[in-house]
Amino acid sequence: MTRTLKSWIPIAEDNDFGIENIPFGIVQTADGTSLATRIGDTVVKLNVLAANGFFDHLEIEDLWVFSANVLNPFIDLGKPLTNAVRGRLQLLFSDESTELSTQPNLCRQAFIEAGNANMLMPVAVGDYTDFYSSIEHATNVGIMFRDPANALLPNWKHLPVGYHGRSSSIVVSGTNFHRPKGQTKPAEDAEVVFGPTRQLDFELEMAFISCGPTELGQSITVSEAEEHIFGLVLFNDLSARDIQKWEYVPLGPFLSKSFASIVSPWVVTLEALAPFRVEGPGQIPAPLPYLLQSGANNFDIELKVLLKPALAAEKLICRTNFKYMYWSMFQQLAHQTIAGCNINTGDLYGSGTISGPTPDSYGSMLELCWKGTKPLTMADGTQRVFLHDNDTVVMKACARKGTLRVGFGECVTTVLPAKP
Amino acid sequence: MTRTLKSWIPIAEDNDFGIENIPFGIVQTADGTSLATRIGDTVVKLNVLAANGFFDHLEIEDLWVFSANVLNPFIDLGKPLTNAVRGRLQLLFSDESTELSTQPNLCRQAFIEAGNANMLMPVAVGDYTDFYSSIEHATNVGIMFRDPANALLPNWKHLPVGYHGRSSSIVVSGTNFHRPKGQTKPAEDAEVVFGPTRQLDFELEMAFISCGPTELGQSITVSEAEEHIFGLVLFNDLSARDIQKWEYVPLGPFLSKSFASIVSPWVVTLEALAPFRVEGPGQIPAPLPYLLQSGANNFDIELKVLLKPALAAEKLICRTNFKYMYWSMFQQLAHQTIAGCNINTGDLYGSGTISGPTPDSYGSMLELCWKGTKPLTMADGTQRVFLHDNDTVVMKACARKGTLRVGFGECVTTVLPAKP
Repeated sequence: MTRTLKSWIPIAEDNDFGIENIPFGIVQTADGTSLATRIGDTVVKLNVLAANGFFDHLEIEDLWVFSANVLNPFIDLGKPLTNAVRGRLQLLFSDESTELSTQPNLCRQAFIEAGNANMLMPVAVGDYTDFYSSIEHATNVGIMFRDPANALLPNWKHLPVGYHGRSSSIVVSGTNFHRPKGQTKPAEDAEVVFGPTRQLDFELEMAFISCGPTELGQSITVSEAEEHIFGLVLFNDLSARDIQKWEYVPLGPFLSKSFASIVSPWVVTLEALAPFRVEGPGQIPAPLPYLLQSGANNFDIELKVLLKPALAAEKLICRTNFKYMYWSMFQQLAHQTIAGCNINTGDLYGSGTISGPTPDSYGSMLELCWKGTKPLTMADGTQRVFLHDNDTVVMKACARKGTLRVGFGECVTTVLPAKP
Repeated sequence: MTRTLKSWIPIAEDNDFGIENIPFGIVQTADGTSLATRIGDTVVKLNVLAANGFFDHLEIEDLWVFSANVLNPFIDLGKPLTNAVRGRLQLLFSDESTELSTQPNLCRQAFIEAGNANMLMPVAVGDYTDFYSSIEHATNVGIMFRDPANALLPNWKHLPVGYHGRSSSIVVSGTNFHRPKGQTKPAEDAEVVFGPTRQLDFELEMAFISCGPTELGQSITVSEAEEHIFGLVLFNDLSARDIQKWEYVPLGPFLSKSFASIVSPWVVTLEALAPFRVEGPGQIPAPLPYLLQSGANNFDIELKVLLKPALAAEKLICRTNFKYMYWSMFQQLAHQTIAGCNINTGDLYGSGTISGPTPDSYGSMLELCWKGTKPLTMADGTQRVFLHDNDTVVMKACARKGTLRVGFGECVTTVLPAKP
């Protein structure tokens, strides 16, 4: 697929959703839910196209998957079919086809202006794992909280460290949340106190969504992993640092990361991201054989975080790239299953905070403001070392190569004050 | 409900499933799945009773819940209805009613001998949390791996420490599993190696199943928590100690506890366990107000673990009691939601390993054999410090008070050799 494919649907030059993208999501309308894609600023209800026979040649047994309220049953059709639907949509939207473009009534039924589309959580997340695979992030945290000379823990370069997260609190972009409350211990000799977190942070992540369920006891190799990744989303792993610090020893983060985690509504397929594959950083020491990989296993995806106070303009506070990840998604999934853990369609696997090599490329307030020592100044002159009430965090992701552009849109959430 | 209620269905004196119990589970037959209960050694298909009008007076809108393949939709009817179904079954099974006992054809349709019943995983587990709430277990682990003088970590008496676990790998009793493989680092200065775990362990736990979904941002108080607990199961949180030791810093257990976790098939309701409520141990220091409780919040449930080598008789290796838990289930659930984490019907909340005060009451091989220093001798003379291939672990739980007995049956699994 080259950029020479043009669409009869208007697409602005800098739009994330060109004809090469064709992501999948779920839209809610007065008629119910529909599987949807987006092209330019047009959201397209795929149940309308399905009901009008546009996918009949694919012989999909049950067209109900196009009206489901999650992508899971569609993903379960398997990559040959879901990729065929994607290819079919590219053709229908292209200048080379008049099948859809000559049916204005149908387009009126199927098309929704993106600004008016009520996008739902795209998948039912069975299990959610959060990895910790950015070497820059792990090193920064190690320097701040442990020993600068031994910032990385001994296991870090041997396996993609990860932990099980909470699925129920994963919500779609546009969902706001109340500042969480909990136990903290402000200092070594202080009393334990209860109240709203004072160290509310975001974590800039990408997450992949799995497909192709496996049996308990089955493992997926690094090279098989590609067949088990349907697509990617942007992911904001909101964190309460002070709650985390007090609760996380010895069993890991718990309430500090289960009050809200935000995903972008459009799942960009692994296939749409193929042109942006690049080699990851060298891995020394070489990982064990089950984690060995070769070739281009990382993805060159530019990432941004903007912070917008309630009454001031948004400010760009982070620019980084998904390509910096030390452990690839394929290694993460191989590791996830090596002891026999089974995966299901719709599991979500977060990358961990994505930080780059420079201080303006760090993916969390903790790092950007270096543990509270380097405040960020907003457009209205107010300062931040963590998130304030009514702040809005906007994450953006876009892969570019020449004139080719495949983006993710936005992952947005606003901090509401703690409940009384 | 007193023991004076007699049933026309035979129930042996020492049977876990008297007329006071009436647990719920899912049975698979040639006709499909059915909600089921068990009385004595008889499994009763509730979809047959429902189809024959036995629950008509309850005006349950959709009788499909009695044929579902998980308990979740039944539980979602709410406690007033599920308790009414339970009460109705007690009446139908009692000497005081002839409604069912006089219909031998119907009984033939609805009854299955327990030994022939194919019980399925009772609930679809959305999220799974594992707590760490036995003070004896946490102390033992602290003594073995840290400092005997400061065995408990500073946060332990302030909050019920817990972590998110993997839902996909939770399976029903009778499911066997292959010894997991993974990375370990046998000693501080040793190389990282890959292979089957050498420290395979069980963890004796109880787990509760939640009901009454909450919204993100909502908290449940300790006293409200009762309304959000449907019932309990026995739970074997299988663990690979060597994999755990290498992977778990800093984010907690991951692959070491997601290769298989076993639940017993019968969910015993909180209501059936009401007669066995006892006060828990005193909590000093007093917990923060949101965790304060009074009255009888623990449950006197006797627990046993038996270990059976492939070619030898089983041996009782642990006797303990659920009443020893430091943190109650109600405190656990209040804590789970205090930062706004939402719960769903069918979430599973493990107690953490249940150890008692004496060395024969420890709920894991790690503790029973004190880190490999005190081997257990089996009936065939072989010794164990961790589980061997083809060993079967049997857990049992039963609450007793005078002649009243409410039990859980068994939670059983066998270790299969590692896959090649």
